[in-house]
Amino acid sequence: MSLISVGTMAFDAIETPFGKTDKIIGGSATYVAYAASNFVKPVQQISIVGYDFPKEEMEDLRKRNVHLDGVEIVPDKKSFFWSGRYHEDMNSRDTLITDLNVLADFNPKVPDSYQGAEFLMLGNLVPAIQMSVIKQLKQRPKLITMDTMNFWMESAMDDLKKVLKQVDLLMVNDAEARQLTGQFSLVKAAKTILNMGPKFLIIKKGEHGALLFHGDEVFFAPALPLEDVFDPTGAGDTFAGGFMGHLAKTGDISFENMKRAIIVGSAMASFCVEKFGPTRLKEITNEDIVRRIQQFKQLVSFEIELV
Amino acid sequence: MSLISVGTMAFDAIETPFGKTDKIIGGSATYVAYAASNFVKPVQQISIVGYDFPKEEMEDLRKRNVHLDGVEIVPDKKSFFWSGRYHEDMNSRDTLITDLNVLADFNPKVPDSYQGAEFLMLGNLVPAIQMSVIKQLKQRPKLITMDTMNFWMESAMDDLKKVLKQVDLLMVNDAEARQLTGQFSLVKAAKTILNMGPKFLIIKKGEHGALLFHGDEVFFAPALPLEDVFDPTGAGDTFAGGFMGHLAKTGDISFENMKRAIIVGSAMASFCVEKFGPTRLKEITNEDIVRRIQQFKQLVSFEIELV
Repeated sequence: MSLISVGTMAFDAIETPFGKTDKIIGGSATYVAYAASNFVKPVQQISIVGYDFPKEEMEDLRKRNVHLDGVEIVPDKKSFFWSGRYHEDMNSRDTLITDLNVLADFNPKVPDSYQGAEFLMLGNLVPAIQMSVIKQLKQRPKLITMDTMNFWMESAMDDLKKVLKQVDLLMVNDAEARQLTGQFSLVKAAKTILNMGPKFLIIKKGEHGALLFHGDEVFFAPALPLEDVFDPTGAGDTFAGGFMGHLAKTGDISFENMKRAIIVGSAMASFCVEKFGPTRLKEITNEDIVRRIQQFKQLVSFEIELV
Repeated sequence: MSLISVGTMAFDAIETPFGKTDKIIGGSATYVAYAASNFVKPVQQISIVGYDFPKEEMEDLRKRNVHLDGVEIVPDKKSFFWSGRYHEDMNSRDTLITDLNVLADFNPKVPDSYQGAEFLMLGNLVPAIQMSVIKQLKQRPKLITMDTMNFWMESAMDDLKKVLKQVDLLMVNDAEARQLTGQFSLVKAAKTILNMGPKFLIIKKGEHGALLFHGDEVFFAPALPLEDVFDPTGAGDTFAGGFMGHLAKTGDISFENMKRAIIVGSAMASFCVEKFGPTRLKEITNEDIVRRIQQFKQLVSFEIELV
């Protein structure tokens, strides 16, 4: 099965307590593609870049069966650029620079060759752009997942609510779930969100794991306890890519299979944070992934007699 | 098998976003006893109270097979009193009042009838008092577990380090593990602590669950996602009581059984926070506990094929 991934392909400059980078490759769709391409072929990318986006990066993605027909290259503008600095706890960061550049004109066109895709991942973007992609699809995907952020809750809440009614799964972090609903309790926030459109909700809690809600069911997956979190940039998008990649590989959107997908996503995210940017994601093999998933099993498995 | 529990029996006055109490029963050993007595008989309590500690509370504990020979009643002083106010996130709180009262003179004597106990829970107390209890035991217990807090790291670190060398398991929260070691990464902090004496370490993360470390092994148990956390007071001690209660019931201190014990402890803690003080712990039945443990199984269970 195929997966359409809509999002940014960009440059990031990152400072963490462990070091700092010059401009390196980033963007939500980049991370989704590197994670998902381990599981599903093709990943059909929709994004926009400037003249400065490296050809070799595009080539790397093509080699992983990531289709780039939907990636617009603007010849006279620069790629989206973000720069940020992480605090010691690695859970909070300050944005230093946001240069929208090409992203200001992003008006995605879904290529004909992408029509019929069964899975759609809408990365964090202006809600109206997310809606436009959904509307261009002639056949509704089996599963539409969206990410979003606090900024759109403040500036485009009406549009955001319209998109929410069109998607099957919302993926946000704990602060965003609280802001979207005005509920501090994540269980209450989840109930509210499941009445806003999505049938499934994933609340990402960073180093504290992720929760999946569906009806009255709930599943929890921890993050792997790591000696060092080197750079958390892209971990959430990598999680999304692993999650959607596993679903698209198996074609099964049952709650049981979503549990597996969350473990796969968590495993991929645990690689992402080990080096700057997507560096580590480019290195890992299928064997590494299997071994990491095994660690997750060991981390939470227990046998108990109920008497 | 029997469990000795050393700690405070006290009065608390609590304010949360949901309400406030007058003086109610509290104290670490109270919570440990209410939790552990569901699993092991007897719980052998060592504590100190004043003339004002209610006879009915003592009677309630006796009915649960909690032995009170080791609880000193001081006829002319008041019981230890603590008052605190929780913030909206329920993870942080301000202490309003700490009246040590009888606790200032606490010099525990282990009754002869307690000698030979296989399990010892040292609640958070002056390290020298914890040490004195260990030294009074003629036969070393199968497992000695201790709790402690940041205050002793600042005021009695040398004594604390001596006690650490004598215990098998340390139970602290994430902030305490970081303060004790100067390591921000919990994995690194765990390695350091496992070189300070204890063979096992539990790091409690409140609503984010708990981690068990032993050698190179690690196990994670989540907290149950709850609609409302009504009052977190005593949740950590209740966790300890459920944990030690399960171990003492089974007499098995393997890593595998400690995993089960952590789930039991987490289940007990999830009851504790549902009402003020130990109220909810007094109500629950064995059936409630079994049902709650079942919820934990469902929360984290997944099946995955590794290919």
